[in-house]
Amino acid sequence: MRITGGFWAERQRVNGSVTLWHALGWMDELGWTGNFAAVGNGAGSRERKGREFSDSEVYKITEAMSWEHGRSPDGDLDARIEALTSQIGGAQAADGYLSTAFGRSWQRPRYSDLAWGHELYCVGHLLQAAVARTRNAGAGPLLDIARRAADHVCEVFGPGSTGVCGHPEIETALVELARVTGEQRYLDQAALLVERRGHRTLPEHEFGWSYFNDDVPVRKATVLRGHAVRSLYLACGAVDVAVETGDDDLLAAVVTQFGNTWARRTHITGGMGSRHQDEAFGEDFVLPADRAYSETCASVATVMLAQRLLLATGDNRYADAAERVLHNVIATAIGDDGRSFFYANTLHQRTPAQPPNGGERLDAGGGLRASWFEVSCCLPNIARLLASLSAYLVTADDTGLRLHQYAECDVDTHLADGRPAGLRVRTSYPETGDVAVRVTRSGGEPWSISLRVPGWATGAVLVVDHERRPVAPGDVVLTRNWAVGDEIRLELPMRPRFTWPDPRIDAVRGCVAVERGPLVLCAESVGEHDLDALRVRTGHDPAQAGDGAVVRAVFEAPQDSAWPYGEPSARPGSPVPLQLRPYHRWARRGPSTMRVWLPTT
Amino acid sequence: MRITGGFWAERQRVNGSVTLWHALGWMDELGWTGNFAAVGNGAGSRERKGREFSDSEVYKITEAMSWEHGRSPDGDLDARIEALTSQIGGAQAADGYLSTAFGRSWQRPRYSDLAWGHELYCVGHLLQAAVARTRNAGAGPLLDIARRAADHVCEVFGPGSTGVCGHPEIETALVELARVTGEQRYLDQAALLVERRGHRTLPEHEFGWSYFNDDVPVRKATVLRGHAVRSLYLACGAVDVAVETGDDDLLAAVVTQFGNTWARRTHITGGMGSRHQDEAFGEDFVLPADRAYSETCASVATVMLAQRLLLATGDNRYADAAERVLHNVIATAIGDDGRSFFYANTLHQRTPAQPPNGGERLDAGGGLRASWFEVSCCLPNIARLLASLSAYLVTADDTGLRLHQYAECDVDTHLADGRPAGLRVRTSYPETGDVAVRVTRSGGEPWSISLRVPGWATGAVLVVDHERRPVAPGDVVLTRNWAVGDEIRLELPMRPRFTWPDPRIDAVRGCVAVERGPLVLCAESVGEHDLDALRVRTGHDPAQAGDGAVVRAVFEAPQDSAWPYGEPSARPGSPVPLQLRPYHRWARRGPSTMRVWLPTT
Repeated sequence: MRITGGFWAERQRVNGSVTLWHALGWMDELGWTGNFAAVGNGAGSRERKGREFSDSEVYKITEAMSWEHGRSPDGDLDARIEALTSQIGGAQAADGYLSTAFGRSWQRPRYSDLAWGHELYCVGHLLQAAVARTRNAGAGPLLDIARRAADHVCEVFGPGSTGVCGHPEIETALVELARVTGEQRYLDQAALLVERRGHRTLPEHEFGWSYFNDDVPVRKATVLRGHAVRSLYLACGAVDVAVETGDDDLLAAVVTQFGNTWARRTHITGGMGSRHQDEAFGEDFVLPADRAYSETCASVATVMLAQRLLLATGDNRYADAAERVLHNVIATAIGDDGRSFFYANTLHQRTPAQPPNGGERLDAGGGLRASWFEVSCCLPNIARLLASLSAYLVTADDTGLRLHQYAECDVDTHLADGRPAGLRVRTSYPETGDVAVRVTRSGGEPWSISLRVPGWATGAVLVVDHERRPVAPGDVVLTRNWAVGDEIRLELPMRPRFTWPDPRIDAVRGCVAVERGPLVLCAESVGEHDLDALRVRTGHDPAQAGDGAVVRAVFEAPQDSAWPYGEPSARPGSPVPLQLRPYHRWARRGPSTMRVWLPTT
Repeated sequence: MRITGGFWAERQRVNGSVTLWHALGWMDELGWTGNFAAVGNGAGSRERKGREFSDSEVYKITEAMSWEHGRSPDGDLDARIEALTSQIGGAQAADGYLSTAFGRSWQRPRYSDLAWGHELYCVGHLLQAAVARTRNAGAGPLLDIARRAADHVCEVFGPGSTGVCGHPEIETALVELARVTGEQRYLDQAALLVERRGHRTLPEHEFGWSYFNDDVPVRKATVLRGHAVRSLYLACGAVDVAVETGDDDLLAAVVTQFGNTWARRTHITGGMGSRHQDEAFGEDFVLPADRAYSETCASVATVMLAQRLLLATGDNRYADAAERVLHNVIATAIGDDGRSFFYANTLHQRTPAQPPNGGERLDAGGGLRASWFEVSCCLPNIARLLASLSAYLVTADDTGLRLHQYAECDVDTHLADGRPAGLRVRTSYPETGDVAVRVTRSGGEPWSISLRVPGWATGAVLVVDHERRPVAPGDVVLTRNWAVGDEIRLELPMRPRFTWPDPRIDAVRGCVAVERGPLVLCAESVGEHDLDALRVRTGHDPAQAGDGAVVRAVFEAPQDSAWPYGEPSARPGSPVPLQLRPYHRWARRGPSTMRVWLPTT
């Protein structure tokens, strides 16, 4: 399965050629990679660089490099992975414990700060790196390190323990490691950790136990809550455990949680997290545009969770969700250049941002993409997602192939029953909505090709054998004795459309958004318009213009007064056309103001 | 000047008889008062209780007790003040330095953490306590302690230093101390500290230099920003310095800052602070109802600043501002019982709150008043304001008396030129709008009585000599040779009214508030209504009902869907009358939901 061209191929190319090395460069310069070597030489250095979770960033970039080396084999990458692996291994204790931040005589004792120490979280990312390396290059030293670390975790946090890590991540990682190694023990440990959370064993905190998702047991919770990334990673682990153990109740709990979160706690971009204070979900329908947190890492985690739920249930609405997040948060969070990033992804920029000092930002705020952040979890997280993105497009089962995400790609695989099947997809999606699927390999028996018609795609048309027929959102399944060269075409309607928010979302009452295909559009101003004064007329549908849209707008001159509450006032200007562009392209032209939600007249 | 009855007299009574002792009880139990004795016995104890700024809470409650003892002399209070003074003095170093948290062999060195150590901040509150004690009971040991502490500050932070405290407060305190002692040195030091801030000498922080107001020099700033309390205290100090040194430019800078802040960064309640993350002002027009921070301390500081600007400029619009804050934040932040408090004052409670665990809250959030907070700056701050509230009602100048706030009170004073003047005010304001002012003392020459007609009071009537005449918002000045027994009556219109927000306030677009006199009203539901579904009809004015109002409302049944963005939808219900009540009375009937801003149909 290869992405061969178009929107995501270009993102993958830049990721492999620029982003990975950019991230490695920063981590080397900041000493995060050096921490492993520093503690590896027996006596060790007392000066450790970075925050307590910096090991995890090294593991995540190692994971990203491993996927990238699989996607596009590269000797330099391979050598760098091996070198990092050797340094990581050098820092591992004889009993398998691995952390550069804890456990040595001059450091805090192992597991003395489960709430904030991130030790198991870091090991989780180590495991995921090892899984990626193994899947792309076969078993090797990184897998050995991971197994020893996982064995240590099983020994310390086994059935006799009550400990959980303040930041979930190890749960899903242990299941992934169990899949690669066939080791039941890792799956059992993951299940233990999933069940153990929610009993308030972590210390009480200003942000509440919900911050750690330690407020309610996973199988009793009805919605995602607290710290968004923590909550989403935990849910990923719970689905993994549920699938591997056949635990339908646990799966149903996460299905409910995701459903309620998607329906009530998600920004129109698919971004999650409403609060800067604790990087957390807000209450239902608290979705401010201007203080949207919508952390990049949370979006990576949302794609991970949606994909797990898709695989577990077969329901393509999870692919709809992943598509939204991919095109409107992931694509936004990383700049074209592959060297600039958003940590938080606001939906409303009120005042033009200041460029960050020296490239690195101390805060998660945005308005301009930054080269690096003091906490740079997001950058390697995007990198590992982009490098492994082809895994999210197509699935195979006994009866055929299912296309979940549209990109130019070649599929050459076997169905679950072993028959060969191949497809070539040609499309310039999301610029246009035409998707041509050609059979390139077929086993001579009937099998099915299933296409996802996105939830937004009212009016889609399927063309088979020169016949056009309307298809409704959902799955279109065609079962045939496919011959090489057979072609299907899906035409998704790409007219821009107005989208209204649920009236319970106070923050965007009286506003409308404009979407085109899977893309959320936005109004951006580099000084030419006062977006505070913008009012959009919704009497006519927006017109398509390039890959964006044009709407009719008026600019109401704001009336300043000494006190901003009193009589209603409006001083409408003359209608003008206003160009809207894909949200993911904003903030590329320097400091600007921006709105996704447009007040109506 | 005494408040003799009505709304604020009851608040003062409860403050003196309950709140002061409640706060002292907590501080004793938590060991905050004990810290002074613990370090006072030479060797000292190594175990210190509370956060690094806990000394300030002891000073603030000492200030409150000092005002209260002046208002209503009480031997127990007096004895407690003396006992505390003795403990405080015992902790003072020979060179005047005073902190229970820094400077001893087992503690961090003095001034080693100016950004977060709060040492000068604490001394500032010590000075204010000493000023209050001196004004109410004459010079004594607390003033001696304060002078020694202030002298030490002048020595360390004099012209050769570049240091400022991360939390302003010492600036205004030094000027107040200069006023009480006549000591020019303290005023000079305050001026130095005001000028020294804004040059980024404090360390860079995730929250930005604006958090400390160290981003821009005071005289160059055009709006309050960063941490609300820090910003407001600094502005108080700047006004104090400007007034005492005749620095019109500095005063003009703060006038501009307050004006822009009031016009663009203040909630309808008069509350300031839009962000939980850094307890900070948001950008212009970022005023979310549900995540309003509107910290109680910021409101105390706003009243302090408004009063300073009123005294400096004579402009009664500052008294309008103080009235709004007093009635809608201060009155809200403390419960009837005098033992329960809000730290943050939200304008929208979406889900009924959980009672805090054991009475003490770890977070600033609300929904129910709490007995105590881990950071309990707000409670003693309200206590000192309420105990000294009579200072905010009336001013005297050469030509007469000016009434700025309306409460039942007796004034017996001299004009600035020495002539005696006395008034008795009778009113049940803000329940009704009638204010009767009777002359109780007069010197036999013409002098003026000035009444403030609040900005909201369109249609006010003045009754003099049985003659009624309409008066516009602003000042009404009557100059006469007043005789004892002469009476004026002001009738302020108390019809409830709709108030619309500036269209640039995104968070409350499409909503209306209802006010009555100085009171902001709210809709509250203890389970009887779904306030998420509330829509108010604004075709008819709200009707008065008790001290609240009744509006016509419909409840639109919310339509749940899997994704909250799509076609516009409305399922209006039948119109029903909805009772609104003063905001300051909300959350008295147990967990509830509440809205100040009411979506319109």
